[in-house]
Parts: sequence; C-alpha cells; structure tokens
Amino acid sequence: MIPRYSRPEMTAIWSSETRYAIWFEIEAHATDALAELGVVPKSAAKSLWDWWATKPAIDVAAIDAIEAVTKHDVIAFLTWVAENVGEDARFMHQGMTSSDVLDTCLAVQLARASDLLLADLDALLAVLKRRAIEHKLTPTIGRSHGIHAEPVTFGLKMAEAYAEFARCRTRLEAARAEIATCAISGAVGTFANIDPRVEQHVADKLDLAVEPVSTQVIPRDRHAMFFATLGVIASSIERLAVEVRHLQRTEVLEAEEYFSPGQKGSSAMPHKRNPVLTENLTGLARMVRAYALPAMENVALWHERDISHSSVERYIGPDATITLDFALARLTGVVDKLLVYPARMQKNMDRMGGLIHSQRVLLALTQAGVSREDSYRLVQRNAMRVWESDGALSLLDLLKADEEVGARLSAAELEVLFDLDYHLKHVDSIFARVFGA
Amino acid sequence: MIPRYSRPEMTAIWSSETRYAIWFEIEAHATDALAELGVVPKSAAKSLWDWWATKPAIDVAAIDAIEAVTKHDVIAFLTWVAENVGEDARFMHQGMTSSDVLDTCLAVQLARASDLLLADLDALLAVLKRRAIEHKLTPTIGRSHGIHAEPVTFGLKMAEAYAEFARCRTRLEAARAEIATCAISGAVGTFANIDPRVEQHVADKLDLAVEPVSTQVIPRDRHAMFFATLGVIASSIERLAVEVRHLQRTEVLEAEEYFSPGQKGSSAMPHKRNPVLTENLTGLARMVRAYALPAMENVALWHERDISHSSVERYIGPDATITLDFALARLTGVVDKLLVYPARMQKNMDRMGGLIHSQRVLLALTQAGVSREDSYRLVQRNAMRVWESDGALSLLDLLKADEEVGARLSAAELEVLFDLDYHLKHVDSIFARVFGA
Amino acid sequence: MIPRYSRPEMTAIWSSETRYAIWFEIEAHATDALAELGVVPKSAAKSLWDWWATKPAIDVAAIDAIEAVTKHDVIAFLTWVAENVGEDARFMHQGMTSSDVLDTCLAVQLARASDLLLADLDALLAVLKRRAIEHKLTPTIGRSHGIHAEPVTFGLKMAEAYAEFARCRTRLEAARAEIATCAISGAVGTFANIDPRVEQHVADKLDLAVEPVSTQVIPRDRHAMFFATLGVIASSIERLAVEVRHLQRTEVLEAEEYFSPGQKGSSAMPHKRNPVLTENLTGLARMVRAYALPAMENVALWHERDISHSSVERYIGPDATITLDFALARLTGVVDKLLVYPARMQKNMDRMGGLIHSQRVLLALTQAGVSREDSYRLVQRNAMRVWESDGALSLLDLLKADEEVGARLSAAELEVLFDLDYHLKHVDSIFARVFGA
Amino acid sequence: MIPRYSRPEMTAIWSSETRYAIWFEIEAHATDALAELGVVPKSAAKSLWDWWATKPAIDVAAIDAIEAVTKHDVIAFLTWVAENVGEDARFMHQGMTSSDVLDTCLAVQLARASDLLLADLDALLAVLKRRAIEHKLTPTIGRSHGIHAEPVTFGLKMAEAYAEFARCRTRLEAARAEIATCAISGAVGTFANIDPRVEQHVADKLDLAVEPVSTQVIPRDRHAMFFATLGVIASSIERLAVEVRHLQRTEVLEAEEYFSPGQKGSSAMPHKRNPVLTENLTGLARMVRAYALPAMENVALWHERDISHSSVERYIGPDATITLDFALARLTGVVDKLLVYPARMQKNMDRMGGLIHSQRVLLALTQAGVSREDSYRLVQRNAMRVWESDGALSLLDLLKADEEVGARLSAAELEVLFDLDYHLKHVDSIFARVFGA
Repeated sequence: MIPRYSRPEMTAIWSSETRYAIWFEIEAHATDALAELGVVPKSAAKSLWDWWATKPAIDVAAIDAIEAVTKHDVIAFLTWVAENVGEDARFMHQGMTSSDVLDTCLAVQLARASDLLLADLDALLAVLKRRAIEHKLTPTIGRSHGIHAEPVTFGLKMAEAYAEFARCRTRLEAARAEIATCAISGAVGTFANIDPRVEQHVADKLDLAVEPVSTQVIPRDRHAMFFATLGVIASSIERLAVEVRHLQRTEVLEAEEYFSPGQKGSSAMPHKRNPVLTENLTGLARMVRAYALPAMENVALWHERDISHSSVERYIGPDATITLDFALARLTGVVDKLLVYPARMQKNMDRMGGLIHSQRVLLALTQAGVSREDSYRLVQRNAMRVWESDGALSLLDLLKADEEVGARLSAAELEVLFDLDYHLKHVDSIFARVFGA
Repeated sequence: MIPRYSRPEMTAIWSSETRYAIWFEIEAHATDALAELGVVPKSAAKSLWDWWATKPAIDVAAIDAIEAVTKHDVIAFLTWVAENVGEDARFMHQGMTSSDVLDTCLAVQLARASDLLLADLDALLAVLKRRAIEHKLTPTIGRSHGIHAEPVTFGLKMAEAYAEFARCRTRLEAARAEIATCAISGAVGTFANIDPRVEQHVADKLDLAVEPVSTQVIPRDRHAMFFATLGVIASSIERLAVEVRHLQRTEVLEAEEYFSPGQKGSSAMPHKRNPVLTENLTGLARMVRAYALPAMENVALWHERDISHSSVERYIGPDATITLDFALARLTGVVDKLLVYPARMQKNMDRMGGLIHSQRVLLALTQAGVSREDSYRLVQRNAMRVWESDGALSLLDLLKADEEVGARLSAAELEVLFDLDYHLKHVDSIFARVFGA
Repeated sequence: MIPRYSRPEMTAIWSSETRYAIWFEIEAHATDALAELGVVPKSAAKSLWDWWATKPAIDVAAIDAIEAVTKHDVIAFLTWVAENVGEDARFMHQGMTSSDVLDTCLAVQLARASDLLLADLDALLAVLKRRAIEHKLTPTIGRSHGIHAEPVTFGLKMAEAYAEFARCRTRLEAARAEIATCAISGAVGTFANIDPRVEQHVADKLDLAVEPVSTQVIPRDRHAMFFATLGVIASSIERLAVEVRHLQRTEVLEAEEYFSPGQKGSSAMPHKRNPVLTENLTGLARMVRAYALPAMENVALWHERDISHSSVERYIGPDATITLDFALARLTGVVDKLLVYPARMQKNMDRMGGLIHSQRVLLALTQAGVSREDSYRLVQRNAMRVWESDGALSLLDLLKADEEVGARLSAAELEVLFDLDYHLKHVDSIFARVFGA
Repeated sequence: MIPRYSRPEMTAIWSSETRYAIWFEIEAHATDALAELGVVPKSAAKSLWDWWATKPAIDVAAIDAIEAVTKHDVIAFLTWVAENVGEDARFMHQGMTSSDVLDTCLAVQLARASDLLLADLDALLAVLKRRAIEHKLTPTIGRSHGIHAEPVTFGLKMAEAYAEFARCRTRLEAARAEIATCAISGAVGTFANIDPRVEQHVADKLDLAVEPVSTQVIPRDRHAMFFATLGVIASSIERLAVEVRHLQRTEVLEAEEYFSPGQKGSSAMPHKRNPVLTENLTGLARMVRAYALPAMENVALWHERDISHSSVERYIGPDATITLDFALARLTGVVDKLLVYPARMQKNMDRMGGLIHSQRVLLALTQAGVSREDSYRLVQRNAMRVWESDGALSLLDLLKADEEVGARLSAAELEVLFDLDYHLKHVDSIFARVFGA
C-alpha cells in the first residue's frame, strides 16, 4: 500500500479495525445461530451484541500484544473480546476453525472493495459517456500502426472506452460473485463440530452466498479469478492512458491532461506540460496485472489447505484493490478534465494532403470498372508522391491530373470522394449500439 | 504447439486449411449481404458458393507462395480464390479491411476451441462425479499444512474438484461469450465503406454476436479475459494434479495413477511407479498460466490498432487452447483410472494414535464446564505425548489415564468421542449442495 | 510493505528520511564539484556541509507540505533545504535535472539493499554449511517423483542448497553491479548544462560507477535484471521451503520446523505442529517473483523517458527487497533450528523392503552376463511383489528365492548389493566440490 | 515454434535429429571413460564410434515407434542404437540415469543456442555502432513524457541502444555459463553406480563445466536465470522497437522502417507505410518475457526431482531461443536499413518556437543574479505564450520584448542562449565512454 496511490475509503477496508470488526460480526452472528440451535445459551449471543452496541473502540495494540504471545491471530482476538465481554464470550467460535473467520472476513472485504470499484467504474462510465456525446461528431484522424488511416471522431474513441469499461463492469460483477461466499464448515470442511445452518445464517446476515463445499478454506480458484479480472481491468486502464499519452505528444497535441495553474512540469524546463497522470496510470496497471500471477499460483494448495496463500493475500488483497481504486478515480479525473483540441485534430488530419481518402478512391475506381489490382496501382502511385511531399502535394490535385484516373472518374466525381462526412454517417448507429437508442 | 501435448481435433482448428476455410466463409457470407444490399451483383456471391460446393482443396502452399510476394496474407488468399473462382471474385472483400476477416476468423476459432474445452470439462466433471459417488463414504484423513487434521472422505475430495471445475465451466462459458464477436466495420471501425448490415449478416451466419464498437480490430480486453480464464482453469488442474502427486508419495500411497502392464518407470530403477502424468500436468499448467500475461499486455494497442497483438496470438491462440485441451483430457484419464486404496487410507488415519479426534475432546471438555484455555492445555499435554511416540501411544488411553480429564469425562464418554462416523454425518448434505439433491 | 514481513534495517533504507538524506548528499557532493569547476562559489558547498554537520533532523512533514503545493518532490526538497541553509542553497542543483537526483538515489538504495541481502545470503550459507557437515553421512532416502529412489544423505540435501544459494550470491553481486551507477547528465543526458566531471565526482563519493550513457534516466534494463535476479533467488527459497514442508508431512516426518514451547498450531486441533514458516516462505517467493514482470515492462520507456516506471518502483523497490530480506532471514532461522530425525529417516528408508537397491541388482545381473532386458525383467517381477506387499516382503529374500536370479548371483553376492554405504562412498568428493577440499 | 518467426540454424538445434546426435555423443563419451576405468570393454566404445563414423542417418520415426511401446524416450533411443551397433551397445549407459543424458543434452542445446544469440547480438551491436557514428551529430529533439525537452542527436539514441545491448551481451554470457554444465551422477546424484571421472570426461569433451552437486537433475535455478535473462534482453528489444514506432508516427516521421518496392501496407489504404516489423518485435518481446515465469516456477522441484519442469522446457527451450534469435535478427535488419530523416528532425525541433532552450535561459537568468523562483516565473510566462501559439510565436522574440528579462540579459546575450551546438558539446565524450576512445 503506497499512501500516494491510496484513497481513504478503500484503505479503510483493509485496516486492522475493520478486519476485527468483521471478525466480531462473524463470531456474533455465528453465536446467534448456535444459540438458536441450542448449542450455546442465548445469553451468550446477547452479551456479545450488547457489548457491540456500546460501539467499543477496537484496541489493535492490545490484540497485537496478545498475538505476540500466542502467535495466533484469531486466538488473540478471541482472548481480547473475552476480556471485554466476560464469561459469556467462551461460547464464541464453538466448533469453528480460524479459517472460517479469516476466509469469510476476506470475502466481506473483497465484496466491499468490489462495491467501491463498481462505483468507480460507474463514475468513469458517466464521464466517458458525457465526453463521448460532447465530441460525438468531432472529427479526428483514425490511426493504425500510428499512421494516419481514415477519419473517426473523438466521441467514437470515448464510446470505445465506454464499451470496454462497461465490459469491465460486467466482469467485475462476476468476479464479485466469485468471492462473496461464506464458509463456516470447521477444520476440514465436514461440519463435524458445527451445524451447516450456522454457515447459512452468517452468510445471510453478511449478504454472502454459502460456499457449497469447502476444505479448511474457501477454494482459491475464486480468488484467482477475482485478481485476474482486476488485471484485465487494469489493462483497459492502460489502454486509455496510452491513448491520452499519444494524443498529448508535442507533435500530435490533440488533447492534454488538465494542467493546474501553479503546477510545474519540470524543475529544469519551464515549458513542459507532461502527461504524468496517464504515465502514472500505465505504471499502476503493470502492478495490478502482476498481482494476478501469485493469485493463480495460490490455487494449488496442498490437500485440505496450506497457508502459503495467506502471505500473498496480505499483499495483493490491499495492494490490488487500493491501486485499482486509485487508478480508476485518477483516470476518471483525467477524462473528466481532459483538454480536447478539435482545431488541432483538423489540422493534423489535413496534413496528409488528402491521403486519408485513398481507400474511397480505390473503391470508386473499382466500381468504375477498373480491376482491383489496377485501382490499387493507380491510387498508390499518386499517394506515394503525396506521402513523399510530406503533405505539401494534394492527392485530389494529383488524381485530377492523372490521365489514367481521369479516364474513369471526372474531377467532380473525384471531389465527392474527399468528403469527411462520408466517414461519419454511421456514428449515430454505433452510438445507439453502445449507449442505447 | 508440442505434438506430444496436442490432440487432433483442437489442433485442426488452428491449421492453415481451417483458417482459410473460415476466411472464405466470412468473405462469401459478406458477399451475400453485399449482394442483398445491391452493392455487388448477386452472381458474385453465387459464384463463390458454387465453387465452395465443389469442396475444393485449399492449396496452402500456393497461397503461401503468393504471400511471399505480396507480404500480405489476406491479399494472398483473395488472389488465390480469384484464380479459382474467376472474374466474379473481384467483388469479394468490398469495403472490408483485413482485420475484419482476421479478427472474425479468430473469434470463430476461439469459439470452436471453447466448445471443445467445454466438452473436455463435461467429460472431466462426469468422471469426477462418478468417483465422488463411488468414494462418498471412503474415509481418509484430511490434512492441513500436510499434517493430519480430521477425517474427510475421498469422495469429498472429488466433490471439491467437481465444484471447482463446475465453476471453471461457468467461467469458460463467460469467456467464450467474450470472444465470440464479429466485426466487419472497415479500416477504423466507422463502416465508412461497408454497411453495418453486412456485419450483422455474417455474425448471424457464424453464430457470433456483433461487436458493438470496434476500431480496426476487435478490442483485446476480450481476449485478455479469455486467456486469463484459461490460466485460472489451468491452476485448478494443477491443484488436482498436486493432490494426486501427494497421495502417490511412497509414504502416503493412498492413490496411484494407473500403471499399464508394459510401462517402465525408470531406466535405472525397476521398482518405480511415478505420478508422471500429474507431474506433467503441473508443468502444463505453468505454461497455460504464463500465456495470460502477454494477452493482458496486448490490450493497450495504440490508437485504432497496432499489430503487436498478432504475433502474440499466433503463439498463444494455439498453444493455450491445445495445451489446455490436452491437459483436461489427461486429467480426466487420470481421475477415471486412478487406483484408490481405502485400506491404506485407513492405515494412515490410524497411525496418529487417535490425535485426529483431539478437537472433539477439546469441545467435549469445554461443554463439560472446563474453560477453553484449560481444555486446550489438557488435550495438548496428552496429544504431545502421542505425537512424540510417533503414534505408538493412543490418545484415548492417555486421556482415560489423565485424572484431570477423568474428573470431567468418563471412559465411556471419551470413547464416544473417537467415532469416525461423527465426522461424516454431513457428507450427504454437502453432496446435495454439489450434485443436487 | 507488510510490517509482519519486514525487518527494520531494510525498511529504514526506504524511509523518507533516508531518501532525503541521500538526496542531500548527492546535491552537496555535486555542489562541491561545481565549486571546484568554478561554476558556483566554494562557500555554497561549504554552507551545505556545515549545516549537514549539525545533523539536522529531516522534517518530512514540512517537505510534504511544500510538495502539496509545488506537486514536485525534488523542488519541494530543495525549497526546504534552502529554508534551512539560507541564501547559498540557491547554487544547489545547478544544471541538474530531478532524475539525476532520483535515479542516483535509487542506485544508492538498491546498492545498500543488495548489501543487506548479500549479508543475508552469507548467514544462510553459513547455517547450510553447518547443517551439511553435521548431517554429511546421515542417510535418508532420495526421492524422485515423490517416490523412493536410492539413498542420499541429509547433508547432501543441505550441500545442494548451499551450492544453489552460493550461485544466488554470485548472481546478486552481478545484479548489484548492474544498478550501482550514477547519472548526473541533465535533462536528456547530454550534459548540456553540467560538466561530466560532476557526475564522476558524485559517483566516486557514493561508491557508484558512472552511467556511460543515460537519457533523462538511468536505463531500466539494469533494474529489470536486478528484480529478475531477486525473483530467481526467491524461487530457490521456495525450493528449500517446499523440501522442508515435504519432510514435515505426517507420514514422512523426517524433519520439522522448530516448535517453540508456548506455540499453538491450531485454534481447534491441539495436536498440530505445522510447517507454517516454510509455507509462508512459499507465498513470499510468489510475491518476489511477481515483481520481476513489471520491472521488465518498465524497460521500454518512451524516447528519453516517461515516468511510468516510477510508480512501479515505488512498490517493488521496497516490497521486493524487504520481502526477500525477511524471507532469507526466516529461511536461515528455519534451517538453523530445523529438527532433524535420523531414526525416522532410517525407518522410512527401510519400509520399502529393500526396493531402493533394485538398480544395483540390475547392474550386477548385467555384469553377470544377463542381457539388460532380461535383468530388468528379473528385477521388476520381484520388485513389483515387494511393492504390492507395501514393504512387508523383502526384495533380498525374494531374489534369493528366485531361481533364475540364483543361477547368476549367489545369496552372498546378493547380500553385498544391499549395502547402504555403497551409496555414500562419493559424498566426500561431492562435499569437496561444494565446500572446497 | 512458429515457422514465420523461426530461423533455420536455431531451429535445427531443437530438432529430434540434433537431440539424438547429442545423446549419442554423451553416451559414447561416457562409454569411453567407462572403458578407460575398466568398467566396460574398450571394444564397446570403439564399436560405438566406428558406427558413428559412418555418419548414420538418425531414424527418428523408428525411435518414436519404439518409444510408443516403452513409453520411455531414452530407453527407446538406446534400443535403436543397439539395433544398429549390435552386441557391444549393451555397455552403454552403464550406471547412468536418463536425466544424465537429458539434462546434459539440454545444456549442450542451450549453450549452442546461446552462441547463436551472442552472434546475433554482435551483429546488432555492429549496425548500432555504424548508425551511431553515421548520425553522431544529427540533431534531433530529446523527449521526456513524449514532450519536446532539449536537443540530443540521433547518434546518441543509437549509442544508448548500443550500450544497452552490450549489457545484454554480458548478461547472456553469464547466462550461458549458468546452464553449460554436465551432470552424470546417477539416479539421485550420488555417483553410486558411476564414477565421477566419467562426468568429468564427458564435460571436457562437450566443453561443459561439471555440475558440482546434482540431484537426479541439474538444478533448475540455473535455467530460471537463463530464461529470465532472455526476458530482459527481449525487453530491451521492445524498447528500441517502441522508439522506432514512435519515430515513424505520421506526425513525427523522423525515421521509417525500410519499405520494399512491391510491399503493400494495407489491403484497403494504398498510402500506408506501417512500422510492422517493430510492432511485431513488440509482440515477440511479450512472449519471450512470459517464458521467464514458468522457468522460475520450475525451480522448486520436489525432493531429488519431479518431472514437472520437463513439459515446460519442451515449450520454452525452443520457443524462447528461436523467438529471440528471430527478433534480434529482425531488429538488426530494421536498424541496418532504417530510413533516417534529418530534415524532418530539424523541422520538428523548430516547431516549438525555441521552447527547447528554456532551461538555458533559466540558468542564465539565475547566473545574472535573479532568484531561481523569479527566473522560473519569467521564463514560464513567456514559454506558456509560445506553447499556446503552437510554435507560431518565438521564445527568443518574446524574451527580447520582456522588459523584466531585458533588464538582466541583452538581446545579444539572449541570442547566444539559443545555440544548438551548445547541447552537443559532450557528444564526443559520451561516444568515447560507449565505444572507447
């Protein structure tokens, strides 16, 4: 957890206080169910909740001090609760194993983290939609291989990102469902010493599904899928970040991260306005992606469990969710305030002397009866001259002057082919696909 | 693609012949739609299908030879088709871009590969279910940290694997839906030169969804999610493989891979029967997992596309699906023919002198009014003696002889606590959760 | 950085105080050199060092507060120093760029971290050597595929680990040399505004090499190699950790992690003694390995630099080195105090009814004139009976009773082949290779 | 292995024929040593070499057919050799284990692959040096964050790449030394049935080092380090590839991959000249990098070995080396023939209205007695006007017209600060560092 890449709400999910509070709720709900089943006295559950109703501060240092002796975190916690609640506390944890508490707690934490991330995605989708609509018909050059291809609109770029993050949202919902399960099934998952109804009760109270079959732990393929999904989302963040970085290049400069008044781009070069937020996002994406791997290696625990997954999760549980939360929020800010320069887009589009219309000429020649191969040759020989002139020559002019072309297409017919709107005629229907009619 | 880890049906999906056949179908279906829209003559489409109806052999070498000149695979293919179909072929590919063909073809290949993998999972699930039911009540020791914990059944282990691979199946269905999309949207996704209805028609014919918004390519977050999912499935394979490897250890030997009559385990040591299939699966899982990463790095293509993803997909498209197909089939074979040794399971369970019942004694003492801490101490002091005797001493005997214990629990009461069936009483309900009532 | 997996000395390297102290030294040494070259007054350098000699506390909060305004960490630091040193401080940083300070500082931090890791490795090597010598001739079964093969000694296992970590040490020395370079070359590495002699001076003072050619930054292939090396070392840790975990399995129990008197293995099962340290190390290894990947992705910075590497390094700089330092120390403790059970090793070795000598019988038969194929058949048919008897039968007995064998080898000749010392006769020479004569 | 990304010499190393030839040499050299030691008759070794001297074709199909029965590759090979050599062949492989042959063979293959890769690097270094010297003083803008910073030369970019690949060469030499070891130590590495002098003899003959201590296999930390090193080299390839891709962007176009006369950039857009080679290299780099991970996971084999590493190595042995060989050769071709456009470099540099000299003005103001903060403010206010004019305004003109600036620096003094050569004055010394004086 790197403070500068952390936001408080997500960070709080991973605090010791939150963890112990969730532990308490798991234990208390379980005690309720045990009381209902007659395994423990009803007064035991009542004592726990009565104490909890006083909103006691959780004394992390005291619990840590006990753990230093017992070398066991759950036992330390139970001991501390017992010191506060008194005699009745001994009925807690009856027939449960530590992993029942730890894994169910992790499920609650990851579910809460997912909820924040889903909200982050919603916020991002909202600004993407707004910018998409705003620039629905702002023409800009589409590029393949970094080379000018044919016109698109800036709104289309935003719509693509919207569709991509909408997919990410769907994936994250599925990933949330993967990990939101409750297991209170005892030392090896057989419910030997605890009734399955306890599990059902706790699951209901915590808004989790019941884990159908667990070992000592909830199976880690669930978590692997969860963290792999975060890695994919991070990769989509990287894609949009890289797009912004490209657009802000000095030679392109079609868009720019917002640059606040007092901001300094460089200690040495006062003129610099750098896409540092999106570069930062590129790096953060690498980290979130990297966390998918140890999560996958965690799946093959030995027999009914070993504890190798635990240390991994102490890192990637907080690190992946906190970093992704920060990154989504940062990306939302970047998109929200992105400075977009339509004039520069037009200027860049014009610099190629009309080469971006070459395909349309090719098709028109074909339809005028020229073979595909000849059409290609005719267009290419003129296109190459424009290319080599660095846009000083105009493709339209050259084509008009090319007798072989002229034999098939008149000047007027050629001019029609150099129409920008031709390329934008389906933008509406694409938007309808993405945002609904 | 490693021949020894490949099966023919999956391999065939990735052959040049298959790829060209899919290309042809995409082009011919598109020509149908173009003809319907009046863009090309209806005879063009007919000519294509007429030729196709002759089931022409695809001359890969001839196409390769053309590509060596044009340095462009789709153009080479179109040229070869034109040589065969004649004049009418020039109406193919009207307004399309190469990626329309390539990406839609990849979608078809990955969807077909998914179907094989889904069938593989079904086969695996079937044998897991069979073995689970067969050994539903075969007791065996559950182990955490590699150390004996409490009894489970071998059927429960199979049921856990069943539930895990059932989740994998659900994930794979989602992953299949991710990549089964069709894009025929032209050079930068604007449909500038091709009507969106062509895309819809081809999608319908190939049983794909329409890609709502594409650039020059289908967005690669879809493929990242697909390959990440394969990586998770591979990790689940690894888990079951590692379980078998552990069970086959000389000292454990509770189960064994089937060993065929003529098989030689070692060139030097005639006595060896090694779990080589599951060790092999462990290695294959590492490979499939590794392919998830470049798939994620492929997402951030530049602007409307660069071609860096293409070389990656030439490797991981075949390698990940072929390897996973092989691995699933191999795992199915291992589970199907796995030699299971219940007597040895019982023998291993007995070797700890009854320590596996220690928790139940602990709980009984607590319920008999001893504090949790004292109960723990009483059990542990006897348990440690058994442990140090390497199972020569019996926990039950020691507890009976322990006066402090005897003050709370009679010999008869103690004996009841050492009952194996106690641990298996919920197996039915777990099976009902996993396999349905 | 996870406190429970962190040791203070390594953690201190990554504190804000340490970082700012290194920044100061870089700036002050550079000012010395600039003064020597006549670019700034000599009094400027003197003022800096005079202040430093007062051992001023570094006020991290104050610097952070300035950064909150300037949004630039180096400028914030320089401003704070200037507030303390006064007028003369304005000569600091003359002609330098922020990365000159940041990258050279990172080099110092990674070099110091390497020194701690090298010391960790030395400590580990020392205990491995001690345990190797202690158990040089403690026989134990060698296992391939988890199956008994032929005898080795426990000391050989330790010697293998020693040789492996000695290789790791050599690799780490090389990795340290990779990253211990100094770059003070200005905004794009051309020394436009700063003389290369400044760089040389600072490098000498900080015991770094000069970076021969830098851009704005030190090239990141160096760091990629560094973190990849840490990943390999982590993998070797995993190997030894997995070995211990195997040896501690209930059924094997040839060695055990030290179990302290008050320790509790399980909240539910008092009898448990779990290899939790080595399981933990297995997880930590996954993390350190994972950090190698973003480090490799950091290499391809755009042009003369982008800042995507920076966020990655804020995570993996501390996380990889702190985790590896902790893991090496933990592993050293495990090996140091490992409980080794030679009697159990012997018992396990004996349980196979002499099968471990099967190869030697095979060779003896061959040398007695039996064809290789027939020898194999003769040994295997007896070995399989022993195998199926679960060690109840003795291979030696069966061979003696096998007439076809007896025709070639007498009972006395057979007995000689079942000699354990035969397998240990080259242990001395292997030790000489590993530890020197 | 993807044929289009493979070169014949490297591919040949991984053919069945090569592998079997190496196996034969290992066995024959070992037989020589065994004969020398009197373990087998001298005629046995002679028979083997006599047959080999006839340059027999290796009948891969025949060996495969035997393996289909024995399910053991080494036994199949030995059987086939025996069929050819006759009676004497039975003395082969005496006291050896399959891994002795397999692992030593892999060492020979990886060492040969390394030699090809070293030669590839030499070729790349040679063209980088040539292009560096050719463009030593070709000025071009240095960019940080994709934004114009200060001038560099194109030769410096090449020199940076040269230094980086020179480091890669050093790393690869170290990696080659890691894996070039010979182990002929028997079933569990104890030399129980084979004298260590056999190992020494074979090692000498094959130009390998002796593995000081092996288990059944050569330890896999060596291979992990090898493949991690290839991953780092691939990352450096990616860096240079990305640089070329940036330079070829339509708006930048300072360099271009060579475009052969008949080449077609796009089936749809005749004007396209795309950096497809370097995009391809970017993808290939992702693959080689990905292979580092399973290599690291291979390290933690169980006890004296399991065979999980083997399947991994069947993939990554060929795939990583063949791909890297191809990529290095492709990159060498790209650099060799790269079209470099100095005029465009100058034009791009000029488009910023002199902003690239802003730092020098800042320093001059400081030296003229203005405080650092004021200097920054003075420069920035003029720089921002130039920036917003998109280079239409000139920074020099604005500064001359700024009274506050004029109070400190005369027009003549300002003009001197806008001198390009100022930035190039240390190029010679940097080149001396990189290429030697």
